[in-house]
Formats: sequence, structure tokens, C-alpha cells
Amino acid sequence: MDELEIDDLAAVELDDPVLVEGLPGVGHVGTLAAEHLLEELDEECTLVRRVYSQEFPPQVSIEDGVSELTCAELHAVSPADGRDLLVLTGDHQAQTNKGHYQLTSAFLDLAEEFGVNEVFALGGVPTGELIEEYAVVGAVSDELMLERFEDAGVEFRENEPAGGIVGVSGLLLGLGERRGFETACLMGETSGYLVDPKSARAVLECLEALLEFDLEYDSLDERAEDMEDVMGKIQEMEQQQQQQQMDVPTDDDLRYIG
Amino acid sequence: MDELEIDDLAAVELDDPVLVEGLPGVGHVGTLAAEHLLEELDEECTLVRRVYSQEFPPQVSIEDGVSELTCAELHAVSPADGRDLLVLTGDHQAQTNKGHYQLTSAFLDLAEEFGVNEVFALGGVPTGELIEEYAVVGAVSDELMLERFEDAGVEFRENEPAGGIVGVSGLLLGLGERRGFETACLMGETSGYLVDPKSARAVLECLEALLEFDLEYDSLDERAEDMEDVMGKIQEMEQQQQQQQMDVPTDDDLRYIG
Amino acid sequence: MDELEIDDLAAVELDDPVLVEGLPGVGHVGTLAAEHLLEELDEECTLVRRVYSQEFPPQVSIEDGVSELTCAELHAVSPADGRDLLVLTGDHQAQTNKGHYQLTSAFLDLAEEFGVNEVFALGGVPTGELIEEYAVVGAVSDELMLERFEDAGVEFRENEPAGGIVGVSGLLLGLGERRGFETACLMGETSGYLVDPKSARAVLECLEALLEFDLEYDSLDERAEDMEDVMGKIQEMEQQQQQQQMDVPTDDDLRYIG
Amino acid sequence: MDELEIDDLAAVELDDPVLVEGLPGVGHVGTLAAEHLLEELDEECTLVRRVYSQEFPPQVSIEDGVSELTCAELHAVSPADGRDLLVLTGDHQAQTNKGHYQLTSAFLDLAEEFGVNEVFALGGVPTGELIEEYAVVGAVSDELMLERFEDAGVEFRENEPAGGIVGVSGLLLGLGERRGFETACLMGETSGYLVDPKSARAVLECLEALLEFDLEYDSLDERAEDMEDVMGKIQEMEQQQQQQQMDVPTDDDLRYIG
Repeated sequence: MDELEIDDLAAVELDDPVLVEGLPGVGHVGTLAAEHLLEELDEECTLVRRVYSQEFPPQVSIEDGVSELTCAELHAVSPADGRDLLVLTGDHQAQTNKGHYQLTSAFLDLAEEFGVNEVFALGGVPTGELIEEYAVVGAVSDELMLERFEDAGVEFRENEPAGGIVGVSGLLLGLGERRGFETACLMGETSGYLVDPKSARAVLECLEALLEFDLEYDSLDERAEDMEDVMGKIQEMEQQQQQQQMDVPTDDDLRYIG
Repeated sequence: MDELEIDDLAAVELDDPVLVEGLPGVGHVGTLAAEHLLEELDEECTLVRRVYSQEFPPQVSIEDGVSELTCAELHAVSPADGRDLLVLTGDHQAQTNKGHYQLTSAFLDLAEEFGVNEVFALGGVPTGELIEEYAVVGAVSDELMLERFEDAGVEFRENEPAGGIVGVSGLLLGLGERRGFETACLMGETSGYLVDPKSARAVLECLEALLEFDLEYDSLDERAEDMEDVMGKIQEMEQQQQQQQMDVPTDDDLRYIG
Repeated sequence: MDELEIDDLAAVELDDPVLVEGLPGVGHVGTLAAEHLLEELDEECTLVRRVYSQEFPPQVSIEDGVSELTCAELHAVSPADGRDLLVLTGDHQAQTNKGHYQLTSAFLDLAEEFGVNEVFALGGVPTGELIEEYAVVGAVSDELMLERFEDAGVEFRENEPAGGIVGVSGLLLGLGERRGFETACLMGETSGYLVDPKSARAVLECLEALLEFDLEYDSLDERAEDMEDVMGKIQEMEQQQQQQQMDVPTDDDLRYIG
Repeated sequence: MDELEIDDLAAVELDDPVLVEGLPGVGHVGTLAAEHLLEELDEECTLVRRVYSQEFPPQVSIEDGVSELTCAELHAVSPADGRDLLVLTGDHQAQTNKGHYQLTSAFLDLAEEFGVNEVFALGGVPTGELIEEYAVVGAVSDELMLERFEDAGVEFRENEPAGGIVGVSGLLLGLGERRGFETACLMGETSGYLVDPKSARAVLECLEALLEFDLEYDSLDERAEDMEDVMGKIQEMEQQQQQQQMDVPTDDDLRYIG
């Protein structure tokens, strides 16, 4: 295999499409958002490219006994309402620093091929605490873009994210800007400890405002409820354990009684 | 040395051979199985290629004072009964992600050279517990292959192995499929804590059914018994230690007696 | 993106300039010093090159919502008094061993392009203890340089730094010498635990003597005072905690009282 | 800088020289032995090559304030008695797996250039315990060599070293054999915890028998005595500490007295 191989699976014409990236990261927010988008727009959506790379882990996933080599997928989406999309998803990021540069360059080459001028990278930003109100924090490659995204509900903060943005999302901003793309990164706040469908919904709601289409959220909300059930059970178990520990007489208690 | 060097040690014609891979992995199941195969079919077996690579660790093994550079070996086997085999063994996997891609590509090049259409990757799948009944879990590169392997006793499960398959075995599925090989991975269940000759036997029994040859298992069974003796002694020692710990009066006991 | 990309932002003629390097390292001494130099000589200073490289982390920094791709920057400085400078700064070092070699070579290429013969690498040397008197320890690529730097207050010690000098500063000495540059590394002593503006001032004072210009230190001194306030508060908190721990009666105390 | 740069410092004709390698490793045995050899044969010895490589750490060493870029050095030695030598020393091994292959290949190229047919790699083999009698364990690239080395006092053992030999020493055997060199590795037993001049002497004594020259060991023995003084002081301090711990009444003692 070459360092990079791209399978051309379908020829689709798109009209001024936006590249929407949702690769794995904090809280799986980007992946959840991009995959929900593909599910909801299922009928307007075509798998157009698969990208294989020696920068991905040397790994196959197995479903019902059948293997699939690690890759990134590009779907062309032409929704009834709203702008055309090119959606980039996958199960893995590159495994080295150079790999991030090389894969992002390849993704931008493909974007160019489909006539993309604008790139939206979706992801999460960790807060370290459980979230009540899910804000979406933004970063853009050009300050002229700020107002448009603020109008869509994206917040821009003085020094956030403090550590910058790493990986493909970061380089879509950095390399994208150098190649003339207008890139925005939309990061849903998330605790950082859990897969977070609510944060993914917050990001998608900004996307709806920006791209003028409408999504249903039933399946994503269900997944959020499942997560909350799991969370609730974990907390319950922890409380019971604490209770039991408090009930057990300790060495010191026994001495006191004696 | 070049990045990859292949020594051509013998010219052997094979009739529609299967590539059987047994490189190091969980429980050494693949290595044990492939090496037992070579031992049992010793007389029908020729060492045809050695593969040296900068992706292997920079290391020699020493036997009776004489060094041998780390490599992978390819034996051609023409059993009296059953299909011809090309058996791939070695003491090491590649040491980097890219190395796994590059070595697997080289192995598939060699397979092509010998007219291989079908690849069987042998390995283990860790269960985390001691095994009573050794099932063999499978993965195939094409769902059309499922039935044939199920008939040979291989089990296919909905989401197993959950983390996919990593390394040369995984890429023989993934890269093999892209190059038109039919690849199956046969993984003997194994605790994951020990070298496991019984799991290797379970894998080889599936192979017998698939390739229609017969193997003796005396030496492998002996090795399994040796392992069990070792295990037994370890357990005995642990029990004795626990017993001793129970016999020793603790600080608390002493206080009570006092 | 290519492995290395250099943006040419301005054409500036310099007269026998010195390359002054201040990339991140121990105590951020080099970065603080080089950035203070650029701040103080703000009006005589032009950004001439940006260096992008796949050896830098795959990362953008975000300021007020706008991204900037990781790079190193080269400023041309023509002070009213003293020699011309070419100042190299950046937020990151290379991420691999080879990357250090490749980036340092690129920096020396640029230095050559601007007619540089002399290179001053600024940094810190960790002492493991809080510093009262900030000495500046030196290393040079040619022993003929020793006297001139000693006259400027730089100390040369028999076996220091014991572990040599690693990264771009080290290679500016090592590769620089092989290419005919005269390189000196000026390392301010610093505890190694904290960002250290006082150590940066000590380094800059040597630089003033060497290059015959004058700097103001108000902003750097303010930063040093801020650091000391922070330090003071941390020490106070630690003392209070220790006091509290001494006041709390321990298990043994209670037994005694009983 | 290129990936590899070799400085040609002197032209020396050698008569059937042996390459003697002493790069850093367990107990610094190889380095100590090779450096002692160069010291003792100081007057018959010329520095002929320096090898610089991006595979070495990006580092300079500093002596009396002057930097020297990390490299490996090759000295030509024509002793009054005994065979000519080409001695390979340096402060560092390669930093990656591939680097070991590439540097070893470069060293063998240089050996070829000087007409070398035979390679002796010097090193240590860790035993995990303090050594009384320093045996030298061997490995050779060709079993025909065994007898000659046994006659010189080198021991060959069934499965030692169990983990094989890693790094340049291992590859001088492995790659050397593939290129037609006769390579032996001479490994002095050493605890593995300390720099071990006595083990280096044991290795050199085998070398004397093999190459028919005579060495003085005064400086190496002195260094061994220094090490023993250090060892003695460490043991004394440990015993004092244990004694003090035994003298301090513990919690339990106090309770008993009470």
C-alpha cells in the first residue's frame, strides 16, 4: 500500500459545499455530531471517497465477523433545504505529528476537488466539570468571520481554548488558512469525561443556524438519556458504597465501644 | 542494509497454496500453532525466504553462541494430504505503525509470487479469564467466506473482537482484501496471561477441517501439560503463602489476646 | 504542506547582524529574553520570515477567537545604537530528534541569507535551587571566543552544563560550528521550577555588553515582581497548611490524652 | 546537515585491521574498554573519521566552555606488537530502531573502506548480582569462530544472553554476517547497576589473547578502586541508617513499655 490511498466511490456534483469534519476527540462531540448529520440526511447522502493511510493505526474493525480497514470517509450531502455538504468522518486520528499534517493536507486536497471554500471543524472543548448549559466555543481562521458565527450563537473568548487546538481540527484552521479556505472550529463544551450527545446537539444547532437546514434530534436525545441513565446508576452505586463505608464500624469505633 | 531485504533460499512450486501466518501475539497462540504445523510437517517443508527489515527491532538472537539477525521466515509446505501451504513465522512484529503496513505489504507481495489467493492469519483473543472450552473466534475479509469457516467450527460474534484486530494479522485482512486476497483470521480464546498451547491446538483443529490434513498433537499436548504443572505449582505456592499469612497472628490478634 | 515552508514577509537589509535565538526551554529564559528585546526595540523591528514545519506540533494557537498556525518567527532589528540583530522566536521546539536537526539547519540557512556570521543562543540552565545572584553560564563553538564573552560577564565552567546542551540551542553550537558560524550559548541560571524573568534580565545584560545597546527593564522587572507575589502566596499557603497539620491532634495524641 | 556526515580527518593505511567497537551500554563496559585501549596505545593511534548523524541525540557536549557536536569517532591504531585496529567509540547510541540499522551500516561501510574483515564488539552482560569472578560471555556470527574465542577464554553458553543482543553490537553481528564480516561480541559480566572497570579489564584481557598485544591496567584498576570506595561508602551509609532505624523505638515498642 502507498502511504496514502484514496478510493473514488462515486462522482457527485456539489454546489459551493461546506466541508464538515467530525473525527474522534474530546467527548466524541465531533464524531457524534457528524454521524448524526449523516443519519438524519441519510437519503440525500452519498459515500464518495475512502481515505486509507499508513498514518492511521494498523488495524481493522470487525462487524459481524467481517473486517474493515481503518479509513476516513467522505460523504457528499445535498439536503432539500440549506447548503451542500461534504462530511468527513472516521474512527481514528493520525498517529504521529507529521501524520496530522499529511492527512489534513490530503483532506484539503479533496475539499478543493469538490469546490469547497469553507470548512467547519466540529469538536468538543473540555471544561472539567459537568455541564448544565451547553455553550459552543468557536475559533476562526480570519477575524472577518467572527460576526457571522457570533450571530449563529457561537461564543468567542479571549484566551480559549488556552492550549490552542490540536490535531486535524487545528490544522484545518492553520493549513486551511494558508491555502485560502475560510475555516471555523465549533467546539461544544463538555466535561471531558464522557461521550456527550448533548454537546453534539449544541454544536449541530449552531450548524443549523449557519447552514439553514433543519435536523431532528430524537435519536441523539435518546442517546443522551441512555448516557444519563448510566451516569445515574454509577452515582447511585457510589453513594451506596459510601453509605456502607459509613455504616461499617471502624477499628477506632470498636475500640471506643469496647 | 536496505529498508527491506529478502533472501531467496529455495525455488519451490506450490499448487494453490494458502498463506498461514503465525507471528507473535496474545498467548503466543499464532506462533505456537504455526511452529507446531512446521514441526509436524517437517519432511514436506522447505525454508524458501527470509525477510529482513529495519522495522524489526535492531537485534540478534543467540543460540549456542551463534547469532541470527531478527527476520521473518517463509516455509513452503506440500503435505501428503491436503492443500499446499506457505507458512509465515518469526520472533517479532514491526516496531512502528508504518512498519506494520510496510511488512504486511511485503508479505502479501511474497504470497502473490507463490500464487496465494487465500490467507489464514492465526492468533489469540484474550478473554481475561482461564478457559475451559477453547472456542475459536473468526473474522473474514468477505462475508461470503463466513459459512465455510462456520462449518469448520469457527465462531463469528456480533462485536468481537471489540477493539478490532491490530498488527500484521489485522492488516492481512485489511490490506489483503484491498488486493483481492480472501483472508480469514482464526483467533483461539486464551486468558491472555500465559503462553497457551491448548488454544493453539484449538486453532489448528479448525485448520485441519479447513485444509483437510491431519496433525499429531503429542508435542503440543506435552507443552500444555508442562504449562499446567507450572500453573499448578504457582497456585500451590500462592495458597501456602495465604495460609501462612492467616496463621501469623496480626497486630489486632495480639491486642485481643493481651 | 511541504515538510518546511518559509513565508517571506519583508525584504530588509542588515549590516553584519547577529542571530539571537530565544525558543522555549528551561525557565522560559530564552523566550522571555528574546521577546523583551523585541518589545523594547519595537520601533526598529520588522517581521521578515515565518517558518512552518511538520516538525512543529500539529496545533494552532487561538487569540480572541482567531487561529494562528504554530511557527517560528524571524524579526530583523536595526537599533539606533549597537549591532543589527536577527531575532528568532516561537512557541515550540521540534517534536523529534531529527526535527531538531532539520529546523536548526533551516534557521542557519536563513541566517546565512541575511549575512549572519555570529549566533547567540539564549536559554536557562537549571540549578535545582532558588537563585539569589543570577550568573550567566556560557558555551562557545570556538575557544578563541572565550575571552570576549568572559569580558562581558559570562562564566565558563569546567564541566557545565554537565549533560551538554540539547535542542536548537545545542545544535546552533554544533551544526553552526560545522558551517563556519561563531556561536555562543548564554544560559541564565534559574531554579528550573518557574518562569524566570530575573534570569532573562541577567542574560540580556550580558547581551547589552556584547552588542553595545541599552535596554529598559521596567516591564521585565514588573513580571519578576508578579512572579514573586505568586511565589510568596504559595509559600504562605504551604506554611498555613503545615501549621494546621501540627494543630490537629493525631490518633496517637488522642490515645495519650485518653 | 545531511542525515549522515562523515569527516575524513586523516589518511592511514592499516594492515588487516580488526574493527573494535565500544559504544555506550550496560555498565559502560564497552566504552571503558575501548577508551582504555586508546589511552594505552595513545602513541600509535590516529583519529581518522568523525561520524555525525541525525540519529544521534540533538546535543552538544561542553568541555571547558567549548561545545562539541555528538558524533562517533574512529581511531586507527598500529600497535608495536599485535594486529592493527580500527577503534569505534562515542558517547551515544542511535535514538531509534531504524537509526541503529543505518548507523551500523555506515560503520560497516567505513570498516570495509579500511580493509576490515573481522569485527569485535565489546560490551557488558547484566547478571543482576555483584560479580566476584568476571567471566566474558561471547557470541559469534559463524560457528567456525567458536573454538578460537574459547581458547582466548571467552565462554559460550546455551541460551545467553537470553534476550539476544540489541543495538549496534547486535547489528554488527547480524548485518556484519550478511556482508561477509566475521563478527564476535565479547560481553563482560557485570551487575548492571554500576560503571564497571573490572568487567572492562576482563574483556580487554580476552582481547589481548586474541590480538597478541599487551596492555597496562594501572589507570583502569585505579578507576575500579575509586568505584569500590564509592560502593563502600554507600554500603556504610545504608548500614548506619538501618542501625538507626533499629535504635528508634517504634510505636509498638512504646506501647509495650507503657
